[in-house]
Amino acid sequence: MAVDFMNALRAVWRECDSLLCVGLDPDPSRLPPLLADKPQAVFEFCRSIVDATADLVCAFKPQIAYFAACRAEAQLEALIEYIHVQHPGIPVILDAKRGDIGSTAGRYAEEAFGRYQADAVTVNPYMGRDSVEPYLAWEGKGVILLCRTSNSGGADLQNLDLGDGEKLYERVARLVSGSWNANGNCALVVGATFPDELARVRSLVGDMPLLVPGIGAQGGDIAATVSAGQTKDGLGLMLNSSRAILYAGEGEDKRWNGDFAAAARQAASDTCAAINACRAYRSCSGKKKPVFDRGGAIRGG
Amino acid sequence: MAVDFMNALRAVWRECDSLLCVGLDPDPSRLPPLLADKPQAVFEFCRSIVDATADLVCAFKPQIAYFAACRAEAQLEALIEYIHVQHPGIPVILDAKRGDIGSTAGRYAEEAFGRYQADAVTVNPYMGRDSVEPYLAWEGKGVILLCRTSNSGGADLQNLDLGDGEKLYERVARLVSGSWNANGNCALVVGATFPDELARVRSLVGDMPLLVPGIGAQGGDIAATVSAGQTKDGLGLMLNSSRAILYAGEGEDKRWNGDFAAAARQAASDTCAAINACRAYRSCSGKKKPVFDRGGAIRGG
Repeated sequence: MAVDFMNALRAVWRECDSLLCVGLDPDPSRLPPLLADKPQAVFEFCRSIVDATADLVCAFKPQIAYFAACRAEAQLEALIEYIHVQHPGIPVILDAKRGDIGSTAGRYAEEAFGRYQADAVTVNPYMGRDSVEPYLAWEGKGVILLCRTSNSGGADLQNLDLGDGEKLYERVARLVSGSWNANGNCALVVGATFPDELARVRSLVGDMPLLVPGIGAQGGDIAATVSAGQTKDGLGLMLNSSRAILYAGEGEDKRWNGDFAAAARQAASDTCAAINACRAYRSCSGKKKPVFDRGGAIRGG
Repeated sequence: MAVDFMNALRAVWRECDSLLCVGLDPDPSRLPPLLADKPQAVFEFCRSIVDATADLVCAFKPQIAYFAACRAEAQLEALIEYIHVQHPGIPVILDAKRGDIGSTAGRYAEEAFGRYQADAVTVNPYMGRDSVEPYLAWEGKGVILLCRTSNSGGADLQNLDLGDGEKLYERVARLVSGSWNANGNCALVVGATFPDELARVRSLVGDMPLLVPGIGAQGGDIAATVSAGQTKDGLGLMLNSSRAILYAGEGEDKRWNGDFAAAARQAASDTCAAINACRAYRSCSGKKKPVFDRGGAIRGG
């Protein structure tokens, strides 16, 4: 069952003691040989990653392009349903970066929240507030707006100066945390690759959750990112890693060695620990990490 | 078979004497009763519209959200293939407004050009040049960047002043028509609802094709739009109308009356004529309008 995104996120942050979001970007050309020829290979690969890492994450983030390019929409539906059933309470963010005007945005919101049962969706702000309203209207769903993205070309528009020293990404942060957030369900995407800008966004948006891609394969520095982006209580971040976890079992020669799910778990565990070592405050520090049981309650691990 | 987008567009503009793009936004809740219960209703509705209007258009533009929200991806594939086979030479624009960083953008480009065989795709510029490169790399494919969109909220970001009087949408127009267009396959989306801004974009981008939503149901004025956006030879525009053509057979009471395809054809013909009456130069003026035959050659109608 889908959850109230903001409530679920806050609960999982504390109960799982994790700011790690695992991105599910399954490249069909890069699956372990064991799975590659199976008809549901994309689903099976992601399911194994999910099961291996669910007690280490605050969210899962499937990226829809990896499913759409290979006609695997049904596998994406099955994957999100699997997470809701087997790992209840963990929010699922559909990374789709949609953006369109009202009537069409309504169909995209239906796609994300109705069809796929995602708890949150990433949305592009370029078309303005009215283009976002159809998402905001879905009660309990999170709407995560692009602000300062992790790619170098993000600066082409996002760092343009609006004349008084304010940058475009700062204006987006102000708008989204202000009038766009009337329902309290907005968050922002801010890349880990630019910690100064992450700190600037944090200074503008209070405790608003930030989805932060760019650690892992993209090279963002974890200590600088956590320091720049965390809230006073050491929360406020969903630090996404995709390839560095999914493909942890791949050798430098691009061959898979051993158990890919165990390798992914180890990478997730190491990343989670590296993040937690940098946090101002850790809700569960000193305690043995709690894990989810299948009924959805939290119990001591 | 897919076509070279820019060449095909220029050919169809002249040979069909039309600047009209018909948008295929099939709302499943709004299909004619005759079709509504058929398993391929969305495809069949669009196919009828396509057959009824193909000699009156310069492009077809399916909007992917309307297919994705109702699990009709296979029908979208079939529709685009149908257009390529039955109406060869007419470019198909996949309206998807995608935007993501390199590796993911590559998957979106594969979705649009590989899976769906679209001739062009709409893309959001907010993430910058490097986010667009994976689309630009597909030879012969068009990349249509959002510039000034037709919704009122488009002004929230697009009309921000960059300090020296330049607006963000003007910067996008300059970037896209400059360094982003190294392969000559870029175009821009500029709404019909703001003719002054359309004229400003035209003044910045030379003869670059502009996809212009906002006539028809959104209320953009045709004469003002053509006057503002056409090139010196009366070309340069793809004026999109979706709902006003698709649902022309619907009465004010939302009931369908008579032949929906004939009503769509009449609406498309009226719109095409209204557009042509405003053009500075008409390639086929005075001649009887040519039509496509099924072999793809152009013949006198």
